[in-house]
Order: sequence, then C-alpha cells, then structure tokens
Amino acid sequence: MSLTHTPTFPQATLAGVTAPAGFSAAGVPAGLKSTGKNDVVLVTNQGPNYAAAAVFTANRVAAAPVHWSKQVITDGRVDAIVLNSGGANACTGAEGFANTHQTAEHVAQLLNISSGDVAVASTGLIGEQLPMDKLLPGVERAATALAGGQDASDQAAAGIMTTDTVPKIASRTVNGYTLGGMAKGAGMLAPALATMLVVLTTDAVLDATQLDAALRAATSVSFDRADSDGCMSTNDTVLLMSSGASGITPDAQEFTAALADMCQELAAKLIDDAEGAQHTIAVRTFNAATEADALEVSRAVSRSNLVKTAIFGKDPNWGRVLSEVGTTRAAFEPDELNVSINSVMVCKNGGVGEDRSLVSLEDRNVSIDIDLNAGSAQATILTNDLTHDYVHENSAYSS
Amino acid sequence: MSLTHTPTFPQATLAGVTAPAGFSAAGVPAGLKSTGKNDVVLVTNQGPNYAAAAVFTANRVAAAPVHWSKQVITDGRVDAIVLNSGGANACTGAEGFANTHQTAEHVAQLLNISSGDVAVASTGLIGEQLPMDKLLPGVERAATALAGGQDASDQAAAGIMTTDTVPKIASRTVNGYTLGGMAKGAGMLAPALATMLVVLTTDAVLDATQLDAALRAATSVSFDRADSDGCMSTNDTVLLMSSGASGITPDAQEFTAALADMCQELAAKLIDDAEGAQHTIAVRTFNAATEADALEVSRAVSRSNLVKTAIFGKDPNWGRVLSEVGTTRAAFEPDELNVSINSVMVCKNGGVGEDRSLVSLEDRNVSIDIDLNAGSAQATILTNDLTHDYVHENSAYSS
Repeated sequence: MSLTHTPTFPQATLAGVTAPAGFSAAGVPAGLKSTGKNDVVLVTNQGPNYAAAAVFTANRVAAAPVHWSKQVITDGRVDAIVLNSGGANACTGAEGFANTHQTAEHVAQLLNISSGDVAVASTGLIGEQLPMDKLLPGVERAATALAGGQDASDQAAAGIMTTDTVPKIASRTVNGYTLGGMAKGAGMLAPALATMLVVLTTDAVLDATQLDAALRAATSVSFDRADSDGCMSTNDTVLLMSSGASGITPDAQEFTAALADMCQELAAKLIDDAEGAQHTIAVRTFNAATEADALEVSRAVSRSNLVKTAIFGKDPNWGRVLSEVGTTRAAFEPDELNVSINSVMVCKNGGVGEDRSLVSLEDRNVSIDIDLNAGSAQATILTNDLTHDYVHENSAYSS
Repeated sequence: MSLTHTPTFPQATLAGVTAPAGFSAAGVPAGLKSTGKNDVVLVTNQGPNYAAAAVFTANRVAAAPVHWSKQVITDGRVDAIVLNSGGANACTGAEGFANTHQTAEHVAQLLNISSGDVAVASTGLIGEQLPMDKLLPGVERAATALAGGQDASDQAAAGIMTTDTVPKIASRTVNGYTLGGMAKGAGMLAPALATMLVVLTTDAVLDATQLDAALRAATSVSFDRADSDGCMSTNDTVLLMSSGASGITPDAQEFTAALADMCQELAAKLIDDAEGAQHTIAVRTFNAATEADALEVSRAVSRSNLVKTAIFGKDPNWGRVLSEVGTTRAAFEPDELNVSINSVMVCKNGGVGEDRSLVSLEDRNVSIDIDLNAGSAQATILTNDLTHDYVHENSAYSS
C-alpha cells in the first residue's frame, strides 16, 4: 500500500483487475521485451453486462491504439482489452494502425467476440513498428492462459510494466460490490490526463453513461493530479469496465467516491515508483481563491526542476517554491504567502520564517504546503524529486 | 565568441559595458561570495545624456531591487547601476527593500548624484538578507575603482557571476557609435523575459522612449528565446543606458538591429554556459502558421526533460520531440510533421524517417528542426541538455 494515500474504502480480498466478479486476465512473455518478461496482457469481461468508459491522452500526437480504442468506446461497450509493453505503436503511420486493427481482430477471433468491442493499449518506445510475428502468438498464449484469481491479476499487472520497478494493483469493496485495477507508468508521466495505462474493473451494475461520469470525476482528482516529469504521453489510456456480476446497483456518489479512492491509491503508487525518484512530494496549495488557482500553483511548483533537485539534495529551498508561485496567475499577495516544508513554516508572509535547519528531508515522503491567504479552496499535486537516476535512466532508455 | 550566434554587426575594439564612450565600471570583492571573488559592481554613465530603459522579470514574486529599479526607470533616466552577486535580496520583506534603498543612497552620495537615478540589481540565493556591513564598504571601494577600458569591463562582468563559469560580454560598432554589454545567468534561466542580469550601454544619442522601443524589440528575439531550465527568476533585470557621447543620432531600425544582434550573442553565451550543460540545443520550428505557433512549439520541446536527457545521452529520440509538439495548440496535422536532428530527417510525415544511427550528437551544438507544414513562420528557442551535473549543482546550490 502506498504511503502517500490513506484509503477511505476497504480493500477487497483480492487485488487487481480480477478482484471483481466476472473478469479474467492473463499476462505472458512474447518477446517484445528483450528481458523476456511479461509483455502481452489480456483482460476480459464475462458479463453479464459489458458497459465501459474510457479517457485518453490529450496529446494530439496520439498512438494508433488510442485512435482505435476511441472508436471502440463510442458505443459504451468493451468485452476485452489487449495491452502490450515493449512498444508504444506511436508515430507509426498507417502500418501502425493496421497492426492495432489486426491485434484486435486476432483477439476477437480467439474469444469469439466482435473486434469492435476489443480495446487496445500499447506502451514503450515511440516510433517503431510492433513485431507482429511475436505479438500475435503472444495474444494466442494469453487467450489460453486467461483466468481469475490473484495470480492472473499479478501476471497482467507485470505485463504492462516498462521502467516501472513494481506492478501496481489495487481494489476496494463496497456494499456488496467490488472494484479492482492495475496501472503502469513511471516516466513521461504528467496530467491531462494520465500518461499511463490503467485498467479498472467492477462487478457493480452501471451503464456506460454512469461509468463515464464516475471515471471522469475520479481521474480528475487522481491521475490528473500526478505529475512526475511534466511530459505528456502519446498513449495514455484509462479504461473502466463493468461486468455487473455482483447484481448490485450502487449509489452513484458512493461508487464514484470508491473509484476515486482507488484511483488515488494507484496514482500515488505511480509517483512512488517514478523513474529515479528518492522522494515522493505532495505539493498542497491551501486557502486559494479557487480550486483552479490551487491547481495552477501546485502544478507550477511540481514542474520546477529547481524545486525537484533541491528536494533531492534534502535542501528546504523555499525561495525556489516562491519563485514558481510568482509565475502563476493565481490570486495572492506576495507578502501574504506562507510555505511549510514537512510542517515547518520556513516562509512566513513572503519572507523568512522558521529556521530551515528544522526541516528534515530524510524520509521518502515530503509535503510542501503553500498558503495563498486568498480564499478557502485547495488542491494537491503529487510529484517526485529530480535525481541523477532520472537523468541516467532517460539518457539511456532507448537502448 | 559564441558558437551559436553569428554576428551581423562588427564587434568594437573593446568589449563589455565600457566599450561605448561615456561609461565607467568597476567590480570588487566585498565578501558576499564565500570564494572571495568579485561581488559588487558599479556601472556609471558620465553623459552628456542619461537616457535609459529597462525590462524586468514577469515574476510576481519580484526581488526588492526589481521593485526599486522599476521606480527609478519611470522618468527614463539612470546615472548609475549598482549590482551585487552573493544574494538575491528576494523574499526579504521591508528590511530587504530598505537595504536596496540604502545601497542606492550610498551610491548617490559617493557619486554626487540623485538616488532616484541609481538602479539596483541583485543575484544569488533567495530569502536571505544582504550583509550590509560588507556590501556598503564594497560599494565605496567600487566607487573608488571606477574606470574605463577593458579591465573595468572584465572586472564588472566577473562581479555579477553566480554559477556562471565564464563572464559574458559583447560589443558592436555601427556607423560612428558603439554598443556594449554584459550578462550573467546560468540557472533559473527561462524567458518572460530574461532570468538574469544584463547591463547594456551605448554612446549613441537616443531618448528614453527610443531606447525602450529598441530594448523591447531586442529582448523579445534574444533573451526571451533562451530557456535553460524553464524556471523564471525573481530578479531579472535588463538595463540599457545611453550616454550620447558619440554625438551620433542613429537610424532607429539600424540601432535596434545592432542591439538585437548583440543581445543574441549574450543570450547564446548564457545558454552555452548553462548549469551542467554538455549540449547547446537550437530548437527551430519552421513552416508554422504563425510566429506564436512556432514559438509555442519550440518552447514546449525546449522544456521537455525527456528531450533534454535524450540529447545528453546522445540519443536522437525524435518520438519525445513529437510527443511534445502534440501538447501544443499550434496548427499542424500529426501525419505531416517532419523532424530533423542535426540535419538528418529522422521523422518524416509523422513517422519513421531516415535511419537514426546517421545522427551524430558528439558536437556541443545540436539543432532540432521541426517542420509543421502549416505556413511560413518560424522561431528558434535556445536551450541545453539536462545532465547529471545540473542535478548535482542544483541539489547542492544553497550550501
């Protein structure tokens, strides 16, 4: 469990995409990753319902599977999703789109469903064609391996990892129904919305419109508020599928709250595993005139390489925080700003506050609290420090 | 001379702020820097004219000397500027402003001028009071040391350095008049406008309004287009002073062109010396619908940590370029984008182009050319790679 998110709703007995009734999953190695680890994943919905909703990257240079899955979701039904790591299938032109199409067709034939109900998601290096001679046999092996239970969830979560060091899964149990999910993403991780692949499942009875509303509400306060390196991916996909297998029709507000709670746990896990990170940083802006102001301030501070290197160096350099706040359009007066780092108010009324030597930055988790003194709204962005390992990993990634 | 800027106008015999007639300068050590290097600088205008213009940081958390100098410049006259490194005097409240005021008064008494004609600029760590017991005696020594000639220019340019490894000076000679300048800035270096201290001088005859127009035009195509780390400073100041000592009234367009040419050289020198940088990167966007589109695209790519780490790793990772282009609002079709890295078109029509192994990234200078195929406008942003040394330098800066 993430240190940076305290669950509101209890976890289910199982975790991951097969935690809710009515879902099977599999993850297998197909040779797309040179390491021989799992890289092809299937998640299927056995019903009785097949309602689904999805949100995608806002990047205008979107990958082939994003274009495909946007079409699939238009009728609100998804029977299965096939995911691969080891290649993003982005900037791959007509051949790339044909490969996505062929992958969906292959899944459809194997599972005896319509290819129009098969979502596709890919992650990995941009600008290279997928090795279809490896991917399609992998899909066949995944279809054979489909199962319920914890091992299937774990194998699936492992199969979508790229530079992630640990699989990310979660679950919630609420009044007779269950939610489950898995996520990947450790770099090129920024909001608007997700910059990652996430599959969420539930056995609650909900139609596509209800799922869409809940998903947008949940992602806006979770994945949208995780920002590792400010770089928006070409492949972001968050898919929510409902089997209805619990027979329970949930209260919409309760379901949304539980979904948001689980998504916040997954988002925190993404930041906890961000490339090279040694600190997870919660940038919390309080007493803003509007939530948009609070978000803008937290986002600006989260994206500052100078703030992020300072935290890496265990340096409570509040001047770098203030200089980022000053770049925003949020309502505030410079001489009314307070900044606390790990609860020590190092900046008071826009100037020197408590002794900065009182701040300990030895722990993984860091809070930067910015008080705008301009209202009562607040918002938090989760980010991480900028380290030598981030530079190393991203100067050598394509090899 | 910078490798990244080819001068249009010839350089003068002398370089730096005393290159034009009518200016004196001095740089002395006053103990603000623990290294014992120069840290207090004076530049004075002996006339016969005293017209001046200035542009300042857009950061709303502006330092005390910025607030002071904005008042000084309102009447279009500056007789002298006093600058210090070793402390930014930002986020220092009423005491900080009083210290700036006292510094200007001290200069005014020493030089027998009005304190309302003394601009002040500071650079260094945010959030600490300046040691006035060291600064004021330093100002006295600088006033005594005031001189013309190359050594004075060099001492002054050295005195404003922080993490800069070399002083940055430049000059131009045009039809009987001369321009000179010095700049500092190696980190917290981003546009809108400057994120640095720059003093520019000329002996041409121009009034404050003409200087202001020329300065805004010149900075918009030079310092505004240098972006090292996306972080906007609290202390940016660019001051242009005219002595009129040449007696030459220049053609306004010619003067602006020469000023822009010199500012581009200084901006290139800033990026060439950016913290930890191993590559200077010109991100050039061509065939944009508008110059604003071209700027937005070049700026977005310049700010991508993933692009910057890739170049550090000598990896022509064009997928990371395209994914940044996709985050902008510029007019383009994804399948009409071309990207060349060091003149090799690695991305053609939004997909794989020439063999990326043809790209050599061994040289310091790198060009990333983005063809939007949407018009005829263009713009360049100068940036640098993100390296281990940047992380090291900025995680240890405040010590």
